[in-house]
Amino acid sequence: MKKYKNIIAILLIVSPLLGIAQMSVNQERLEKRIKDLAQFGIQENGETERVAFSDADVAAQQWVIEQLKAMDIETHIDFAGNVIGIRKGTKPNMKPISFGSHIDRVPHGGNYDGCVGSMASLEILKVLNENNVKTKHPLEIIIFSNEEGGVVGSRAIAGHLKESAFAVKNSTGYSIGEGMMRLGGDTTRLAEVARKKGEVAAFLELHIEQGGTLEKENLEIGIVKGIVGLKWWDVEFNGFANHAGTTPMNARKDALLAASKFIIAVNEVATSFDGTQVATVGRIKSEPGAPNVIPGHVVTSLEIRDLSSEVIEKVYTAIKKRAEEISKESGVDITFNKLDTTADPAIMDLTIQSEIEKSVQSLELSYKSMPSGAGHDAQDMALIAPTGMIFVPSKNGISHSPKEFTSAVDMVNGANVLLQTILALDKKLK
Amino acid sequence: MKKYKNIIAILLIVSPLLGIAQMSVNQERLEKRIKDLAQFGIQENGETERVAFSDADVAAQQWVIEQLKAMDIETHIDFAGNVIGIRKGTKPNMKPISFGSHIDRVPHGGNYDGCVGSMASLEILKVLNENNVKTKHPLEIIIFSNEEGGVVGSRAIAGHLKESAFAVKNSTGYSIGEGMMRLGGDTTRLAEVARKKGEVAAFLELHIEQGGTLEKENLEIGIVKGIVGLKWWDVEFNGFANHAGTTPMNARKDALLAASKFIIAVNEVATSFDGTQVATVGRIKSEPGAPNVIPGHVVTSLEIRDLSSEVIEKVYTAIKKRAEEISKESGVDITFNKLDTTADPAIMDLTIQSEIEKSVQSLELSYKSMPSGAGHDAQDMALIAPTGMIFVPSKNGISHSPKEFTSAVDMVNGANVLLQTILALDKKLK
Repeated sequence: MKKYKNIIAILLIVSPLLGIAQMSVNQERLEKRIKDLAQFGIQENGETERVAFSDADVAAQQWVIEQLKAMDIETHIDFAGNVIGIRKGTKPNMKPISFGSHIDRVPHGGNYDGCVGSMASLEILKVLNENNVKTKHPLEIIIFSNEEGGVVGSRAIAGHLKESAFAVKNSTGYSIGEGMMRLGGDTTRLAEVARKKGEVAAFLELHIEQGGTLEKENLEIGIVKGIVGLKWWDVEFNGFANHAGTTPMNARKDALLAASKFIIAVNEVATSFDGTQVATVGRIKSEPGAPNVIPGHVVTSLEIRDLSSEVIEKVYTAIKKRAEEISKESGVDITFNKLDTTADPAIMDLTIQSEIEKSVQSLELSYKSMPSGAGHDAQDMALIAPTGMIFVPSKNGISHSPKEFTSAVDMVNGANVLLQTILALDKKLK
Repeated sequence: MKKYKNIIAILLIVSPLLGIAQMSVNQERLEKRIKDLAQFGIQENGETERVAFSDADVAAQQWVIEQLKAMDIETHIDFAGNVIGIRKGTKPNMKPISFGSHIDRVPHGGNYDGCVGSMASLEILKVLNENNVKTKHPLEIIIFSNEEGGVVGSRAIAGHLKESAFAVKNSTGYSIGEGMMRLGGDTTRLAEVARKKGEVAAFLELHIEQGGTLEKENLEIGIVKGIVGLKWWDVEFNGFANHAGTTPMNARKDALLAASKFIIAVNEVATSFDGTQVATVGRIKSEPGAPNVIPGHVVTSLEIRDLSSEVIEKVYTAIKKRAEEISKESGVDITFNKLDTTADPAIMDLTIQSEIEKSVQSLELSYKSMPSGAGHDAQDMALIAPTGMIFVPSKNGISHSPKEFTSAVDMVNGANVLLQTILALDKKLK
């Protein structure tokens, strides 16, 4: 053991002379990128709103494109609204090593989800340029469009975005179809965006954990072994709108009362099985929506996630059964409309996991192998390319909230792991 | 008995010669008024939206004013946005006999609530003009502003609209303060609108029942003996927004889950006591409102109604106790914000009830004496004037819905009862 330690010590001293190994992203510059990006959509209260397709989202994409062009990266927006930048490799026939993330945000979200991976990817290209490092493979940065509304950009690249998804609107009021056009895409030419398996040598995504595991266990890096699958439904409750003053309690068909029972049932079902499955109702709309009218029509969202598709199905079946009971006893019709924003569980490539692990070890960072509870663009990219994901800690496990935070040191660690893994894969892959 | 029947028969033959007794509103014209009014805010699907302060509401008020001016009625909009029209009486010192209703609507409401009383009032003025009938008292038509958003116009006339209500917004996005200005009012001069007790000789309102009692009992007219009181609250749930994929079920502070338990508790409490009290949650907003984010903040409405203020208080206290239990077990803070849209139960004037009854009998209509489960402008007018209300049947008891319907014959019956009662009170009152 002592012998190895000596060798490591010698390597650490020698490595600067080797040129590549000591290369590191610039912390100050990375922090500034995160701060600058947060200006797009900033509100009076200092928090940022940048839901996909909003003016802020469009402006932020343009800003990313300017940065890439300033670094001599060939950049364009593809027909799905993704920003694509290519840094040429020395071997013209090699497939690209791709990496990136997204810059759109959930409503009332934070400055780190998607942004860390996106800004780190920019920073990595900058560092490679500064150090005049040439790679054999072309390096491709992808800033995916509308990740939060159903990993739309990566889904288009993976070739399985369905036209039926185009009509789904997000909180901006724009549909996915309208939004892609707003970003500079073209929904009539989406087929051209789809890539075949093998067209990408590898895909890597750095992301915040969005959970509390790394922080709780005092670890610096998470190496993702798989991403949970998720399914979405719109659930519709049709009762009967009537006057809240003249309609006795026992003569009501209150759609909101039925929806309330449903929301509780979703929670009860999700916690009734062993395992780490989660089920959530996040969105609700009650119509007509006046205090003095019994709600006649309610629509809620329903999301179920798990590493196993069978578990998702089992939870859904149990929820549906409970909904049928609620419908029967309340006289309120309940229908489930499955949305085209499902994602199957995705296992990360073992070779890439191993290369990430070596990079983490060479940087002497603490780490663990872990699943991802959140969906990511990497999930769809895994359908067409060997894929890996690197997690950095989220303070208090908070995400999708303005309180989301990841320290500069953690961001730098993650970016360096990504950088070293790209370089290692460039050497290893043909 | 036979003797009396003969007398009635003779009276029926003689009455046309007496001039007043046989006067009747024009059914065709009344139906046209209802139809014309429904054009303001009509949508592609044929349904009308005319929430207070909307462009449609402003335009409809202007249309009413034009009609009144064409009938030589002195008309203006008061500082609270009410349309006020005066038909002069022969005795200049007499206080006005007032009548009217409202033309604003709940979202997704119907063509009869408020509109029947408003259009019948216009029609009555027309018939009186046509027949050259002079009254001793001035006759005052009032089309109240924003009835559905808290009987705002009548409350201002009764002199107890508080400034704190000005900030409350309705579904148009306009606050009550902004809305009154839009209608041509002036919030800085509201005090001038308030009337003292005794300034109005009597107030009468014709309205649809909005419940199913008259239809079920096959009756033509309801004579209202009292109007239930109502109180409104905004109920706020503060949990913690977090990522729906990475936050385990047992680590959530889901504000929508707590709100769902609350909505069920409201229903359970309202049905747990004997009596006809009702409690309703009609409006709900969940934030951030995305399917993949655990809701951190929810606001719902709460409305409680009963003929007794004590019962309203008892129901509220029990709901609040349940809310405290829900808060404790869920870790979600729950706060109640009382809105200035409360109304105390109002008892209708006995003399006026008796005059309405005589009018109904003279018209040979079937009737019953009944409470009103719905709040009305008459409720606030009762604070400053002897007040009475006339109900006509609602088909299937449906109201606050596009399916709301009252037949032309029923509308004519109601309008004739209103007309005869106005004439009777003109004779009786000093």
